[in-house]
Amino acid sequence: MNARTVSLLDVARAAGVSKSTASDALQGAGRVAEATREHVREVAARLGYRPNSAARRLRRASTGAIGLHLPQTATRLDYYMNLAFGAVARAQEEGFDVVLLAPATGTHEPLASRVDGLLVIDPEIGDPAVPGLLGAGIPVVTGERYLGSAPAPTGAVICDNSASLTALLDHVHARGARRPALLAPADTSAWAAALHSTAGAWGRTHDVPVEVRTVSFAATPREAEEATLALLAQAPEIDAVICAPDGAAPGVLHAAAARGRAVGRDFSVAACVDGAAVRGAAPPVTAVDLRPSAYGHACAELLCDILASRTDPATVRTHRWALEARASTLGPVG
Amino acid sequence: MNARTVSLLDVARAAGVSKSTASDALQGAGRVAEATREHVREVAARLGYRPNSAARRLRRASTGAIGLHLPQTATRLDYYMNLAFGAVARAQEEGFDVVLLAPATGTHEPLASRVDGLLVIDPEIGDPAVPGLLGAGIPVVTGERYLGSAPAPTGAVICDNSASLTALLDHVHARGARRPALLAPADTSAWAAALHSTAGAWGRTHDVPVEVRTVSFAATPREAEEATLALLAQAPEIDAVICAPDGAAPGVLHAAAARGRAVGRDFSVAACVDGAAVRGAAPPVTAVDLRPSAYGHACAELLCDILASRTDPATVRTHRWALEARASTLGPVG
Repeated sequence: MNARTVSLLDVARAAGVSKSTASDALQGAGRVAEATREHVREVAARLGYRPNSAARRLRRASTGAIGLHLPQTATRLDYYMNLAFGAVARAQEEGFDVVLLAPATGTHEPLASRVDGLLVIDPEIGDPAVPGLLGAGIPVVTGERYLGSAPAPTGAVICDNSASLTALLDHVHARGARRPALLAPADTSAWAAALHSTAGAWGRTHDVPVEVRTVSFAATPREAEEATLALLAQAPEIDAVICAPDGAAPGVLHAAAARGRAVGRDFSVAACVDGAAVRGAAPPVTAVDLRPSAYGHACAELLCDILASRTDPATVRTHRWALEARASTLGPVG
Repeated sequence: MNARTVSLLDVARAAGVSKSTASDALQGAGRVAEATREHVREVAARLGYRPNSAARRLRRASTGAIGLHLPQTATRLDYYMNLAFGAVARAQEEGFDVVLLAPATGTHEPLASRVDGLLVIDPEIGDPAVPGLLGAGIPVVTGERYLGSAPAPTGAVICDNSASLTALLDHVHARGARRPALLAPADTSAWAAALHSTAGAWGRTHDVPVEVRTVSFAATPREAEEATLALLAQAPEIDAVICAPDGAAPGVLHAAAARGRAVGRDFSVAACVDGAAVRGAAPPVTAVDLRPSAYGHACAELLCDILASRTDPATVRTHRWALEARASTLGPVG
C-alpha cells in the first residue's frame, strides 16, 4: 500500500458521502443528485484522485495482467491460438489481461513487475526461457508438467496422455489393426514422453511391438508423409499409423494411398491432436480432442484461483479429453 | 501526471543525493556507501516511493502495453499466430507488452486505462468489437483498412492485395490456364473486397470471366473441396482454381484429383495465403507469401512510432508480399 495514493474511500470521506455514492458520482452512474455529483468530483480533483487502472493496480499491488508463454513452435499450430483465447476469456472474467510473452525473454523489465502470474504451456526441455519463467518469483501454472530441472510450478493442469493414446491403440486394435505404429516427437515434453512410454507399455500388454518413429514436435504433413513412406518400406506389415503432431495426419493419408493402402478399410490412421486439418481431411481422421480452448480456460482458472487464494498452491488439476472416431479407422471389423 | 506520485527525483532531492545515486542505492547497484544506501532507502520508504512498474507507468501516463485484436476466426489460422508473435517482438523492443484482447469486448475496464494503443488486424464488417476499438480514444493502427463506418484509425499498414491476386492470375495464365476461378470470402474485409474487384478487372482485361465462388473467411479444406467439386460440375472448362482462405487449398487438390485433373499439368491450383498446409501439400501449392510475422512487426512498429511521435498520425505504410511458385502451377507451357 502506498499511503500517498488517494483511494475512492478517501474521496468519499472528504466529500461526506458513501463510497458507492462517490463511485456512482465519478462514473456518472446511478441516481446521484447533480449537486452531489459536482461536489464529489471537485473533492476528487482536489485530492488528486485518479480512477484509472494504473492507480487501482498500484493500490492493490497488482499489474492487472497474467503472462502466457507458448512453445517456440506455437506459430505453426492453431491448437495454441485456441488455447490462448480460452485463457483470455477466463482471465477477463476476473479483470486480468493476458500478455503474450515473446518466445525468448529479452532485456525487458522484470516479469514480476509486468504480470501477477504466468501460464507456461507445454514447457519443453531445450526451451531456454522456461527455467527463468519458473524461477520468476511469481505464481506459475504449467499446462502439462515440466521435465527439466527448475523450481516447481505453483500449480499444473495436466492431461492423461497415457490414457488417450491407450484409447487410440485399443480403438484401432478393435477395428482390426494388428501392427500399429506411432509417429511422435522426441520425449522432451511431458506429452511426448507419455506417448513413448505408453506405446511401449501397450505393446508389452498385447505382445506386439508398437513401431515408433521420431518426428518434429510441429511436423508438417510432408514430414509425416515421408516418415510413413519410410516406415512402410521397412515394415510393410504395419496396418495402422497414429500421428502425434498437430495437423500432420493428412501426410500419413497421402503416404498410405501412395502405397496402395485403403484407409479406413485395410489401414487405419489416427491423430493424437484433433483440429481443422484432421477433421477436414479425406477421409476425416479419428483423433483425440484435447479441447484446447477449454484447456486454456482451465489453466487460467487455476492461476486466478491461486492468485485469489481460492486454492492451495501445488494444486494439480486434470483436463478431460475425448476420442472422436471418424472414417479413417472404420476397419474391417465391426 | 499525478502530483502526489513520488518520483525518483523526489527521493533524490529529499535525500540530498543525485538521481543516479538514488537509483543505484535503491536497486543495490553501483558503488554507493552503505550509509548512503541506508539513508536513501529510509527516505524512499518515508515518502512512499514505489519503484515498481505500475508506479512508473502511472508517472509516465502509460500502461506499458498495447492491445491486439484479431478476427474472430483467428483461432483456426496459424497466420494470425505468426502475426501476433511478430508484433510481440517489435513491441518488446520499446518495452511494450502485447495484450491479447478477447474477441468480444466485455464489461471490462476501459481500454484506455489498460493499453496505450491498439492493433486491429483485418477488421471485418460484422465484427461487433471493431467500431468500439476504433472509437476508444487511443491511437489505433489497423492491418488493412476497415470498410465499415467508424472513426478513422491513427495509422494503417496495408498490402496491395490487388497486385498479388493479379500476379497469381498472370502466373497461372502464363502456365497455360485459360479459364481461372477464384474461391474467396464475402467482401466484408478490405482483403476480400480487393480480391473480388481484382478478379473482375482481370477478367475484363483478358476478355474471359473469372468464376468467383464465395466461401467462408476461414474455410476448411473440406469446404474448399466441396466448392471446387460444385464449380467443376457447373463449369468443367475451369482449368485453374485460386483459393483465398488460409490453409484450404489442399481441399482444391482433392477435388481436382477426384475429377481426374492432373494438378500441375492440365490444372493449376494456387493460394492467396501461404502457410504450412499449403507448402506441405502434395503437390506443394503456389501461393502469395504475406509474410505474417513481418506484417505484425510492421504494424507494431507503426504504432510505436505514433506513440513516440516519430511519425505523423494518418500514416499509411505498405507491406510487401512475395509470390512463391511451386509444383501445383507448373503447367504445360514453359
